[in-house]
Amino acid sequence: MNEVNGQTVRDVGEFGLIARLRAALPPETVAGPDLALGIGDDAAVWRPTPGERLVVTTDGLVEGIHFRLDWTDWASLGHKALAVNLSDLAAMGAVPRLAVVSLGLRGDEEIADLVDFYRGLGALAARTGTLIAGGDVVASPAALTLHVTAIGESRGGRVLSRAGARPGDVVAVSGTLGASAAGLRLLAEGAEGPRRGTTTAATLIDAHLRPTPRLDLAPLLLAHGATAAMDLSDGLLGDLPKILSASDVAARLDATAIPVAAAVRALFPDDWLALATKGGEDYELLFTAPPRAFTEIREVAATVGATVAAVGGVVAAVAAGPSLTMRHGDGLEEAVASGAFDHFRGER
Amino acid sequence: MNEVNGQTVRDVGEFGLIARLRAALPPETVAGPDLALGIGDDAAVWRPTPGERLVVTTDGLVEGIHFRLDWTDWASLGHKALAVNLSDLAAMGAVPRLAVVSLGLRGDEEIADLVDFYRGLGALAARTGTLIAGGDVVASPAALTLHVTAIGESRGGRVLSRAGARPGDVVAVSGTLGASAAGLRLLAEGAEGPRRGTTTAATLIDAHLRPTPRLDLAPLLLAHGATAAMDLSDGLLGDLPKILSASDVAARLDATAIPVAAAVRALFPDDWLALATKGGEDYELLFTAPPRAFTEIREVAATVGATVAAVGGVVAAVAAGPSLTMRHGDGLEEAVASGAFDHFRGER
Repeated sequence: MNEVNGQTVRDVGEFGLIARLRAALPPETVAGPDLALGIGDDAAVWRPTPGERLVVTTDGLVEGIHFRLDWTDWASLGHKALAVNLSDLAAMGAVPRLAVVSLGLRGDEEIADLVDFYRGLGALAARTGTLIAGGDVVASPAALTLHVTAIGESRGGRVLSRAGARPGDVVAVSGTLGASAAGLRLLAEGAEGPRRGTTTAATLIDAHLRPTPRLDLAPLLLAHGATAAMDLSDGLLGDLPKILSASDVAARLDATAIPVAAAVRALFPDDWLALATKGGEDYELLFTAPPRAFTEIREVAATVGATVAAVGGVVAAVAAGPSLTMRHGDGLEEAVASGAFDHFRGER
Repeated sequence: MNEVNGQTVRDVGEFGLIARLRAALPPETVAGPDLALGIGDDAAVWRPTPGERLVVTTDGLVEGIHFRLDWTDWASLGHKALAVNLSDLAAMGAVPRLAVVSLGLRGDEEIADLVDFYRGLGALAARTGTLIAGGDVVASPAALTLHVTAIGESRGGRVLSRAGARPGDVVAVSGTLGASAAGLRLLAEGAEGPRRGTTTAATLIDAHLRPTPRLDLAPLLLAHGATAAMDLSDGLLGDLPKILSASDVAARLDATAIPVAAAVRALFPDDWLALATKGGEDYELLFTAPPRAFTEIREVAATVGATVAAVGGVVAAVAAGPSLTMRHGDGLEEAVASGAFDHFRGER
């Protein structure tokens, strides 16, 4: 099927669209020995691996809230819509197996753009072994909405959850933090902004638009004794309290130990720490592990090209005290208010 | 947790909301021996039945397109958001097992209303043995959006698909058609409309707001040799072409054989046939079966309180001819244009 310039969803209709989107996906992501029925029927039919558990997650992106079409290209948007779901699977130590995509379209979207969206999504699906098993297209005149549900499988029946952190554990993160939030800040400053136009700026923007789910690292956490894990979508100070609450423990962070990309420090000398701890959308893994397990994880992480850093420690919860404190370079210890990063309360 | 009058999503925040919604669900729908991890973690973890295939479907409802808050109560909306997905599972002959719910909220919704939404959804989940395993809440300022992904399991590894109809098969539907479309018409006519206020009108409106997925009937279709099936969401004339196309066959319908509720004929004497064939959202099952299998299915359907009716027959596809024709009571045979029921082209 050839795309005609400027052709829209309304021109080709729902069924014409679905055929074109299916064709935009790599063949190995729409069919396979375990997928008996994929895109085009009432539902997808898939054979899970005997003995494994299923891990199911869903995450949506809404235009104007999670993305702006003048800030992202369509292929990156497709990548991100799938990546944020795969990141949730990584947080459980699960292997991605299939995803379904629910598109809410205004109707005036260009077919060529939606094909690019599916190419971006399909490239990540192919790289991660994820089948695109089906979905749904609905009219959504007010805003483009992209909902993906991803299904993964446990390894050997085991998964990592948020509950399990114990006093004495190390609190650790993968990669570096703050690049995505810095990239978002650069996008908000506009193409003529004082910091734009450098390679550094482009790298940070890319970190925001095309996050990499830490699928390679996740099984190592599971194999080497991590006690709890989640992915960082709301920032370290927004997400760590969720592990603490689920595990009924408290934690102390060391601000000087938080790994922040040099580019973030360079371009944002005044607020790199806020970007790294409150910015969100890093999609790195936050985990806890006993000290010996953490040391092992740090060593094996290098084998998949990942770095992990200890940023604090888990302590016993005290009813009267704060559940999370952060110690700064000047020795001052700050209590972190919980629930300050609520999507509806909007205090970022 | 008590709901305070007039309290909104913004008042209680994302995490307060999730706790209240979880509490609104029947306990057996949020936990069970096969659900290792449900609402509250990055993903749900569930153990599928060994040997069965998984059936995965996703369907979304968008405010202003699929529902209006001045036409539905919140509990019915919760029922319908899950029902349309369970109907897709029924169409495959699958058993529902779990669902995840992605809510796109403006933020000014009242907590009591969202709790009602979850009660309606939860009641149907409990009745159908569906676990509510998790979900996602995102901000969606322009319109309330409700995306559900449901996962079912095959029975004995077998499912019904749209491909499989063969020349000589009977084309059949369950229940009666047109009640949902008639109910929608009544809602559009307004509370002061000439047809409102009767029990008949209330029944039709209820059919639109609270469709019943045909989960009991589906396994009987599978067990007794139905060759293809789907659920009726776009009307008989919108949906049957999908089976014909997937099965590479044609069909003839007999307009006089289409089961239409007496209430629809009574309140809409001029266009009951259009409501029954083009109206949509009946969520009855449309299926094909060899004549002998159809006769068996008709007999056993009564054991689950369902009726099925033969409405036409499958014939071989002819390249030059129409794939679907409908014969009227006056003997006239009409060719049905395919693709006339596209959500984006809007020719209803």
